[in-house]
Amino acid sequence: MSAPLNIAIAGLGNVGGSTLKILSAQTDMLAKRSGRAIRVVAVSARDKKKAASLPLNGIEWADNPLTLASRADIDVVVELIGGAEGVARQLVEASLKNGKHVITANKALIAHHGVALAELAESKNLVLACEAAVAGGIPIIHALRNGLAANQFSRVSGILNGTCNYILTTMAKTGRAFADVLKEAQDLGYAEADPSFDIDGVDAAHKLAILTSLAFGCPVDMKTLFIEGIRNITPHDMKYAAELGYAIKLLGITECGADGVRQRVHPCMVPSLSALGVIDGAFNAIKVEGDAVGHVVFEGPGAGGGPTASAVISDVIDLARGASYKPFTVSVKDLKKLPTASMDAVSGSYYLRLTTKDQPGVLAEITGAFARAQISVQSIIQHTHTADTPAQIVVTTHETQERAMQQALKDMQKLGTLLETPTLIRIMP
Amino acid sequence: MSAPLNIAIAGLGNVGGSTLKILSAQTDMLAKRSGRAIRVVAVSARDKKKAASLPLNGIEWADNPLTLASRADIDVVVELIGGAEGVARQLVEASLKNGKHVITANKALIAHHGVALAELAESKNLVLACEAAVAGGIPIIHALRNGLAANQFSRVSGILNGTCNYILTTMAKTGRAFADVLKEAQDLGYAEADPSFDIDGVDAAHKLAILTSLAFGCPVDMKTLFIEGIRNITPHDMKYAAELGYAIKLLGITECGADGVRQRVHPCMVPSLSALGVIDGAFNAIKVEGDAVGHVVFEGPGAGGGPTASAVISDVIDLARGASYKPFTVSVKDLKKLPTASMDAVSGSYYLRLTTKDQPGVLAEITGAFARAQISVQSIIQHTHTADTPAQIVVTTHETQERAMQQALKDMQKLGTLLETPTLIRIMP
Repeated sequence: MSAPLNIAIAGLGNVGGSTLKILSAQTDMLAKRSGRAIRVVAVSARDKKKAASLPLNGIEWADNPLTLASRADIDVVVELIGGAEGVARQLVEASLKNGKHVITANKALIAHHGVALAELAESKNLVLACEAAVAGGIPIIHALRNGLAANQFSRVSGILNGTCNYILTTMAKTGRAFADVLKEAQDLGYAEADPSFDIDGVDAAHKLAILTSLAFGCPVDMKTLFIEGIRNITPHDMKYAAELGYAIKLLGITECGADGVRQRVHPCMVPSLSALGVIDGAFNAIKVEGDAVGHVVFEGPGAGGGPTASAVISDVIDLARGASYKPFTVSVKDLKKLPTASMDAVSGSYYLRLTTKDQPGVLAEITGAFARAQISVQSIIQHTHTADTPAQIVVTTHETQERAMQQALKDMQKLGTLLETPTLIRIMP
Repeated sequence: MSAPLNIAIAGLGNVGGSTLKILSAQTDMLAKRSGRAIRVVAVSARDKKKAASLPLNGIEWADNPLTLASRADIDVVVELIGGAEGVARQLVEASLKNGKHVITANKALIAHHGVALAELAESKNLVLACEAAVAGGIPIIHALRNGLAANQFSRVSGILNGTCNYILTTMAKTGRAFADVLKEAQDLGYAEADPSFDIDGVDAAHKLAILTSLAFGCPVDMKTLFIEGIRNITPHDMKYAAELGYAIKLLGITECGADGVRQRVHPCMVPSLSALGVIDGAFNAIKVEGDAVGHVVFEGPGAGGGPTASAVISDVIDLARGASYKPFTVSVKDLKKLPTASMDAVSGSYYLRLTTKDQPGVLAEITGAFARAQISVQSIIQHTHTADTPAQIVVTTHETQERAMQQALKDMQKLGTLLETPTLIRIMP
């Protein structure tokens, strides 16, 4: 066996703590699988008291995480602090500059600075690995970089945010309103006090941007990514979705075709019994489509200490074995900027829920707007309603283009019969 | 970029042909992802005429595949001939002996001779890789060896044979009989002329034995593997399964607990809406349970030229990147023979379908047999039947042990009221 791989861990929260515990409890198993011992030499965290229950025996404590970057006895720095800027970024940069490999769970950092950091890592022949940055315990980065690397990928899509999926699943099962379920998720610790990062789709967008780069060999790009969160989904939509045979999921979808790359995060209706439709609670699931394999689906826990530590340590084991690969599979110089395919050109079916005045001619006006935009209606639902509630009209369309759909929507909003902003949800077959 | 990786392909059937086509069509993409060019130097197959449509330009043809093992210009031999013995085994052995890496899709070879071949590969620091041997395009071996390598695994279970899943799915959807659907599958080319390898569970067993070794670090062992195929599943069972909320799947299940390792392949009832229950047609799906990750599910095409070639080439890319790992993750000397946990000690619920005489006292006799074996009945179904057909009684049990269930079954068969051998199907929650 070779010399031990010496690691430092910065950040001992849920993920860092679980990582340390597994490395400490499974030394023998991990050494056999890695071909050498893996040894935690030093750790750093904000609060030493909170780390009291962790197996810190024989491990040096650094009050300042940045000192980990320059220790001669460390081969790899595991960054589990988080955040695109600040200490996390400084630590990763300094570690790479000092010749240390870096393993990180930091999706924001990779989404915003991944290319520059990869360039730095490559220039020094270092590994920069981030399996834990996307979809927690699901080894999706390994899959794109290794297990499915023979494929020219056409699309990667999936449920990338467990908090949103928990909220949407609970809304669907209980009929409760978004705000109510969100509050409960916050009380249970499933959602942050400031939930916007999750529910407005930013977290899913970070992960999707990383997957895009890995799948299509282009630089990470958050700027061209279309994002729409789940705040506007109502119990009405849940009820109609079920009636139509769909589940509502927040999906991240990245596609590469003749017109370029399109990245988008938005709520979707997917068939209730499909691979993504059956994913409940805080689970994640990702469907990868490639020319050789057809498609493969991965599902598993998208967050949590154990699952994320599983991903972090998988990168450590690869490194211990001597694996060497580029952070984005291909060399940074081979990352190719691809054109951005517009949202306007998205092709698909749509669900539209309209709250209207209950008066003669409304249906004719709405169907007229669809007709003018050359959109063919697939189904229309209007249930009997009581006199003191407004009418709800739900329309699903045959395949059309986003451009036409937005035109029809604009047209309808001019009519003066709508009482609320319509809810549009894209349907994924 | 380093020197090209030179490969030879033995066997140009469906998988070999697809492998060659992808390597030929995607040279640039694969070189960028691998960090070096991948070049097919020589090929061999039984029938040169059948290979006429393949891109063979500039590639040497070897009439005798064994000559590929000794060519100085070849780094890796890709064995796609198949079969546990004969030319495939000779070629793999000779290649390793001559210092060539080996990549193979041959599950029978690895299931029967994997340990000896791994020992040979390790002694010469060579890679012996077989991603394509299990579950076609699903990168399950990568997942166990790399992406989930931080986990102490407790169970791996799944749908490992696409032919059986196609037959069972079709039976469930159409109500048709096993023999009828099997014949159709043979006509469509989904099942072999001699189907026993698939439908009696042997193919799934080969794959399961490989997964066992990778997950639990023990030598591959086909001898202690319990196998039961799908020949006895009838349209009655399909109907009752649906009524009870289950789908019938042929599962491979390998578990490691305090009493050792238990490997088994047999039909199971799984909840219709579960991750495995929704897998239709020729697809495979595998659920991996580990201490850190909880569980992860992988689903995808379990066979076919493109998907299997995707797996073969993933191993080629790893090799081109310089990845080095042991064939069974840990070194052969660290593979530890574990005790065999008996089938008798399986704990679970059961489905039992009995065809009985329609006379007073039958139900009392049957429920009496359950009572004597200390088995608690969960549900019992007896539908009205016509006078000229025998009575069907379907019982599901609460959790019990296989030992007790077999005792009850033996007891019932002594009663003289059964008209057919009962059908027992294990229920997986």
